[in-house]
Amino acid sequence: MASKLFGTSGIRGGITSKVTTELALDLGRALGTFLNGEGTIGVGTDARTSKDILKNAFIAGTVSTGTNIIDLGDAPMPTVASHSSMDGITGSVVITASHNPPTDNGFKFFVSGREYIRSEEIFLEDRVSDKKFKVAEWRDIGTVSNWAIRETYLKMVKDFVISRGGRSDGIRVLVDSANGAACNYTPSILNDLGFAVTTVNSHPDGHFPGRPAEPSPKNLGDTMKMIAESDFAVALCHDGDGDRLAVIDENGQFIDQNRVIALFARDEVLRRGEGTVVVSIDTSSVIDEVVKEAGGTVVRAPLGSLQESFVTQKDENIIFASEPWKPIFMELGQWMDGITGAVRFAQMVQETGEGSCIKLMQTVPEYPILRENVPCPDSIKPKFLPKVKELLVPEITGVEQILEDDGIRIECTDASYVLVRVSGTEPKARLYVGAKTQTSLERIADIARKVMKQVLDELHG
Amino acid sequence: MASKLFGTSGIRGGITSKVTTELALDLGRALGTFLNGEGTIGVGTDARTSKDILKNAFIAGTVSTGTNIIDLGDAPMPTVASHSSMDGITGSVVITASHNPPTDNGFKFFVSGREYIRSEEIFLEDRVSDKKFKVAEWRDIGTVSNWAIRETYLKMVKDFVISRGGRSDGIRVLVDSANGAACNYTPSILNDLGFAVTTVNSHPDGHFPGRPAEPSPKNLGDTMKMIAESDFAVALCHDGDGDRLAVIDENGQFIDQNRVIALFARDEVLRRGEGTVVVSIDTSSVIDEVVKEAGGTVVRAPLGSLQESFVTQKDENIIFASEPWKPIFMELGQWMDGITGAVRFAQMVQETGEGSCIKLMQTVPEYPILRENVPCPDSIKPKFLPKVKELLVPEITGVEQILEDDGIRIECTDASYVLVRVSGTEPKARLYVGAKTQTSLERIADIARKVMKQVLDELHG
Amino acid sequence: MASKLFGTSGIRGGITSKVTTELALDLGRALGTFLNGEGTIGVGTDARTSKDILKNAFIAGTVSTGTNIIDLGDAPMPTVASHSSMDGITGSVVITASHNPPTDNGFKFFVSGREYIRSEEIFLEDRVSDKKFKVAEWRDIGTVSNWAIRETYLKMVKDFVISRGGRSDGIRVLVDSANGAACNYTPSILNDLGFAVTTVNSHPDGHFPGRPAEPSPKNLGDTMKMIAESDFAVALCHDGDGDRLAVIDENGQFIDQNRVIALFARDEVLRRGEGTVVVSIDTSSVIDEVVKEAGGTVVRAPLGSLQESFVTQKDENIIFASEPWKPIFMELGQWMDGITGAVRFAQMVQETGEGSCIKLMQTVPEYPILRENVPCPDSIKPKFLPKVKELLVPEITGVEQILEDDGIRIECTDASYVLVRVSGTEPKARLYVGAKTQTSLERIADIARKVMKQVLDELHG
Amino acid sequence: MASKLFGTSGIRGGITSKVTTELALDLGRALGTFLNGEGTIGVGTDARTSKDILKNAFIAGTVSTGTNIIDLGDAPMPTVASHSSMDGITGSVVITASHNPPTDNGFKFFVSGREYIRSEEIFLEDRVSDKKFKVAEWRDIGTVSNWAIRETYLKMVKDFVISRGGRSDGIRVLVDSANGAACNYTPSILNDLGFAVTTVNSHPDGHFPGRPAEPSPKNLGDTMKMIAESDFAVALCHDGDGDRLAVIDENGQFIDQNRVIALFARDEVLRRGEGTVVVSIDTSSVIDEVVKEAGGTVVRAPLGSLQESFVTQKDENIIFASEPWKPIFMELGQWMDGITGAVRFAQMVQETGEGSCIKLMQTVPEYPILRENVPCPDSIKPKFLPKVKELLVPEITGVEQILEDDGIRIECTDASYVLVRVSGTEPKARLYVGAKTQTSLERIADIARKVMKQVLDELHG
Repeated sequence: MASKLFGTSGIRGGITSKVTTELALDLGRALGTFLNGEGTIGVGTDARTSKDILKNAFIAGTVSTGTNIIDLGDAPMPTVASHSSMDGITGSVVITASHNPPTDNGFKFFVSGREYIRSEEIFLEDRVSDKKFKVAEWRDIGTVSNWAIRETYLKMVKDFVISRGGRSDGIRVLVDSANGAACNYTPSILNDLGFAVTTVNSHPDGHFPGRPAEPSPKNLGDTMKMIAESDFAVALCHDGDGDRLAVIDENGQFIDQNRVIALFARDEVLRRGEGTVVVSIDTSSVIDEVVKEAGGTVVRAPLGSLQESFVTQKDENIIFASEPWKPIFMELGQWMDGITGAVRFAQMVQETGEGSCIKLMQTVPEYPILRENVPCPDSIKPKFLPKVKELLVPEITGVEQILEDDGIRIECTDASYVLVRVSGTEPKARLYVGAKTQTSLERIADIARKVMKQVLDELHG
Repeated sequence: MASKLFGTSGIRGGITSKVTTELALDLGRALGTFLNGEGTIGVGTDARTSKDILKNAFIAGTVSTGTNIIDLGDAPMPTVASHSSMDGITGSVVITASHNPPTDNGFKFFVSGREYIRSEEIFLEDRVSDKKFKVAEWRDIGTVSNWAIRETYLKMVKDFVISRGGRSDGIRVLVDSANGAACNYTPSILNDLGFAVTTVNSHPDGHFPGRPAEPSPKNLGDTMKMIAESDFAVALCHDGDGDRLAVIDENGQFIDQNRVIALFARDEVLRRGEGTVVVSIDTSSVIDEVVKEAGGTVVRAPLGSLQESFVTQKDENIIFASEPWKPIFMELGQWMDGITGAVRFAQMVQETGEGSCIKLMQTVPEYPILRENVPCPDSIKPKFLPKVKELLVPEITGVEQILEDDGIRIECTDASYVLVRVSGTEPKARLYVGAKTQTSLERIADIARKVMKQVLDELHG
Repeated sequence: MASKLFGTSGIRGGITSKVTTELALDLGRALGTFLNGEGTIGVGTDARTSKDILKNAFIAGTVSTGTNIIDLGDAPMPTVASHSSMDGITGSVVITASHNPPTDNGFKFFVSGREYIRSEEIFLEDRVSDKKFKVAEWRDIGTVSNWAIRETYLKMVKDFVISRGGRSDGIRVLVDSANGAACNYTPSILNDLGFAVTTVNSHPDGHFPGRPAEPSPKNLGDTMKMIAESDFAVALCHDGDGDRLAVIDENGQFIDQNRVIALFARDEVLRRGEGTVVVSIDTSSVIDEVVKEAGGTVVRAPLGSLQESFVTQKDENIIFASEPWKPIFMELGQWMDGITGAVRFAQMVQETGEGSCIKLMQTVPEYPILRENVPCPDSIKPKFLPKVKELLVPEITGVEQILEDDGIRIECTDASYVLVRVSGTEPKARLYVGAKTQTSLERIADIARKVMKQVLDELHG
Repeated sequence: MASKLFGTSGIRGGITSKVTTELALDLGRALGTFLNGEGTIGVGTDARTSKDILKNAFIAGTVSTGTNIIDLGDAPMPTVASHSSMDGITGSVVITASHNPPTDNGFKFFVSGREYIRSEEIFLEDRVSDKKFKVAEWRDIGTVSNWAIRETYLKMVKDFVISRGGRSDGIRVLVDSANGAACNYTPSILNDLGFAVTTVNSHPDGHFPGRPAEPSPKNLGDTMKMIAESDFAVALCHDGDGDRLAVIDENGQFIDQNRVIALFARDEVLRRGEGTVVVSIDTSSVIDEVVKEAGGTVVRAPLGSLQESFVTQKDENIIFASEPWKPIFMELGQWMDGITGAVRFAQMVQETGEGSCIKLMQTVPEYPILRENVPCPDSIKPKFLPKVKELLVPEITGVEQILEDDGIRIECTDASYVLVRVSGTEPKARLYVGAKTQTSLERIADIARKVMKQVLDELHG
């Protein structure tokens, strides 16, 4: 059996250990083989220093099967993803490791705007493993052309956000693009809409000189200080490839991801009066609260599997989906799009918040949440979750429903919830708890911690 | 006689009033006529929104004479200037209005790395006026090709700064590129040299969303706050086209231009043990002090005429030249280069300042200076300066020399000086005073103010 | 009233007399004004030496109104026209003088794949005349981007021809592209379909070094000799911008345009079993004969007005249209397309002709035709045609119908016809006659010549 | 020991058997290792279909070592070679198999304008063999930029040929570029010089649709017919990458390579009155005759080793060098350049030939030559030549000198010569004979054939 290359977010890893030149070459060959040497694939990269090793090797592999390449150059992930939804395009590939360290890189594959689902990934893994690649006859080798897709994507997003909201009267917005591929995207659209945009970390550089690519509070210190000292209404922060959005309010406070998702989801539901919102298992119940109030339905999917649900459920009613940081506006397309999220957020600050991010966020409840890890060796994982379930469920009062697609998530009638998962990438178990009060949260957390410890002790025994 | 198009820094003005589509077309025709329809001219632009009107009209005009064009795309002024010094290139033109408002644009012409001197400008002015343009036969019309010159220029600068200084051990540097054409230049070189670069206002946008293009203290408020709150060693700030450099220290204090010039000049003199430094008339005596101490000589030239002196004096001994903000490193080329200045400054912060801009600047004396304007109608200007001279000189004690190329500059043996000029572009007279103590400065200023008032009163009378 | 800029095929004329830099600039401004400073226009050029004067001036004018430009570079007319039919594109413009001498150039405007009709042309003429142009605010000036559209167009044509016919087993085809913009288009598609392509005059050069751009027998001497001496199945010849197709058989014989049109028309009708074919007034009755036999209908339109009929008639049933040399395959798009014509012709040589152009053409009857000019001053033209009609109709026997949209065309029951027109561009009257036998043709021609002479004598008198 | 990858003209072979994706990747790594991960390498390709497999794999390998790449796109071999002589460029690589079949491809490496010599090739072979490649740290990985070098090369050649000869009054010239990378080079320069250029096989296509890439008489049938039937003064024919020139006169007669070389060599010697000409061992004595008469000296070098002699001899006096088909104009650069050769030849037809190729060639004597192959297994080769020498020399009368660098070449006082070589790439021995009369030639050939047969029989025995 082929080894598993793909994680919850494409293939990712160190450029000398996992995502090597040889792998890039073989992925090109595998993709071309999947397509039987036909069609045209777009390929773009983020700004990482290893981009030209991997892109060129990938192109060599792809055209050797007969499949044509359109080189999209440096481009954010949402932009490359959108390419796969365009006329005459068979698919697209972005070479990025998102928010990983600069020594990593990776691949994500798209078709019709969505990421490859597991069955498609398995085909690629199998070919990389068995090396059974299609080889084109000399007269049928693929060709390479170029397309500067930026303008086309920007127009697409602009048309979408204009359908959703208005122009600004010039409130100041700070954008921090992590020296990544999205540097000249979010600011350009915001400027066109009348926002006064100041940028920080906004020249593309694969060394990530300004800050690590992950837009987490610990990496955003300078930006938080900058907004706290000046008169910006909001700071909108990306990772290296623009699928992520993090938000800082005008006081320099980092906004919880669940509340950002809730905001977008409510907005999409309100304009239809109904609709399904798909979110990953690790999101909090604030989303359920605001979506239900707006008339919509929330569905939870395992981490890394939102797009799976688009394909299998074919639910026309899905209008918004999200993992933490990564909103998907289904009417625009089925890709995670932090750029569009940033612009929409700015529009809401202008309109709903009347120029204040703090005021805007007052429309979304803020409840305590908690996220912790405990060590959990891979060998124990298979038995861990069933035992936890067995012991944990009886301890929780007021259970409303239990989800078991990815870990055990117990939801209660008072909107509190507890999720225990095992990590897909690290030897850890993860605990997520949410509740309406800090007291309630701590009570549940204590129960869960005790159960997890007991199970781990038993299994270690 | 042709009207005077050129000011002290090329042609500049509003795009609907002066620097119009028609003027751009005629400037292309005039330049091609100057070159007799031969040769190859590079043309680059800053990021202003009017760039594509003016560039395309200029190209149409130029190729209609037979002269070929290389389109350099968006590029900083120093980069375009450097193009004119390359093999097989007849000259280059940058379309920029430097730090002017976004409603302006302009043209600067280069040959062999230096700006056109007055005699060359007059030829262009005459042709724009009399419309006697060369028209190429259909078979001899010029061609247009493209060249992404960025890499070539960056290598040129990198080779130069490596000949002058070392790499950094990773001190943090903040770069503010005014959303101009230099956005991805200074940070790229600094990163290659090991500095940890954070950028602000560093996505190119001709709307200048972050701040006005002039890197003056009043426009740099956010940047000053940002450096004051974080642990950057220095902030390096550009205007819209990268010929200007402004410096802010780690405490958020703006450094006087004269001291920045003195620092560069001293460094260039010290490596040769001798050499001539040419500075504009409006610079202070701190430059003289440090240059003389290092073994060099200072010469003053009228504003906008530094490059005139390169041609007329043919002084091989000129090793550095500068107007306020705009250093010229003669060994690199004869153009004003804020990018190279920024990198050299960072190297000095690392080496001389041991990671502190404040410590570096302690090596350059800081004396009080003063700059003021008084209203002075154009009609009065011709008689104003002779009268001022007549009355002012007798009042000043310890006069060492008097310079009269551009206003009256009286230099004293105690290193104090007073300069009275009339503006070439506004209905104003300007007073500049410098001295070693505040008391001394105010004494001289009072004398000069009194004299200027008296002369103005008389002439108004 | 504005002067009439447009002829039967866009604007065309000498680059120093009519199609000047200033006109190009004003046409850009006029088009942008027509579009109210909105939208995105593609602009491409043929290989003429004056292309960069006119394109750049046109771009300057267009973006000054706010309308965006996509620079398509050098591209054949059909390719540029196809761009106007693409998603998100407001229109396109080709700068070409088709088969005119190299001292000429011109403009054609497209929307949704078709040439501008008269009402649209009049708007442009009026603005060029009254100079009432929209001027964009500085912040709304248009932008310029690039798109290498070649691959997209080639794919579009390839999909179309594959829907019509098959691949070749490798018969040799000679392609003569007049050193024009289509050089690397027709050969590329033919090669992909398996034809063995040899090219002559196939490097793009605006000096038209190999032969004049018009693919008429007198300019194709070398090509005729080349095919006569070697074993090519057919020679396919273009003009400078690829809207025209001329065909030479394997014996070096030039094929009459009417028979080429008849071939294409019959083929399109046969695949539907019905359909309307629109041809220009100057085409012969062989088209009617084969189209009717295949089950279709022929409609005649004034020269230069085929596309007018697409708009006014909105006849969904129009499946093919043509002027001499210039086929329009309506299912592909509403533009004249000599490239697609060339490929389709080659497919028919392979399939119907079994590898022989002569054999293929045996399926289309060949009847004598005649075309002559007589001097006819512009001053006489208004009275000329009515008088000719008055005198000519009674002399012709077996009249079936009379068309009067563009001259007088009298069609007879025996398929003979006579057309008398006055030229729109020269001081000439033109006589066209066709019949099934040479005797019949000469009889009708004698009558028409006599009548025309009589009328001219009278009017001169 | 590493296997020998390089033949007499770089690396060449089938894309699935020898010149594979993996080899391309390893060659990039080997080159970068040779350069210690520093410097900048240009890479260009001919039009072969496999270009994008090999180029992209090669780029991936090169940048993985830290060395930068400039992608030169499709470009003729002389153009890519010239790049390696430019400022700031460390070397260049052309991916081409010259005149080989379309299923082959290959690599040639250049530094300072000349091909790599054996010692440099050995380093690359060793690294490809032992896989000891430099691997750059993530922060030092090489970058890729683009440069459309065509204009620069064309200007370089134009300056050179203008230093040698004049413009044409418009004589017609036929250029056959084999659908290769030189398609738009030779015609462009000729046109600029006033020649009337018609092209055949002049759209680039890696399928070589018009004729096989080798410009030998058997492949040039159509072109010979075309010139014989029309009024061209000369036909100039290239191979796939433009290092070769073949010439056909106005009667359709193919000109012997030795006479073309003699013509160029004489011309270069005459302008200095002296100078050394280096030619490969397989060239005829007509070169010696005309060079000596002009005051120069001829030196013979083994096949594939001309450039070796530039390095080892450092003979400043070498002014021209050539293998059959491949002239090197030393004042222009040290690369084989069929494009420059073509233009110089056309100038001579205009000037010396007064518009006639036949008349021009009358200035160079024409003597009979002969070239034959006999089977000779690789196992026999080591003993073959010594035996042939032993038996052959005594049989030849009037021996002047014997060259033994590459086979046995016996030159006689009457300008006749005989050369026996073993092929470096095929199991064959080759016989070359030249003499002033056919009788003399056949006499020598008979002797040599007899000796070769005798030796082969003995060794087989």
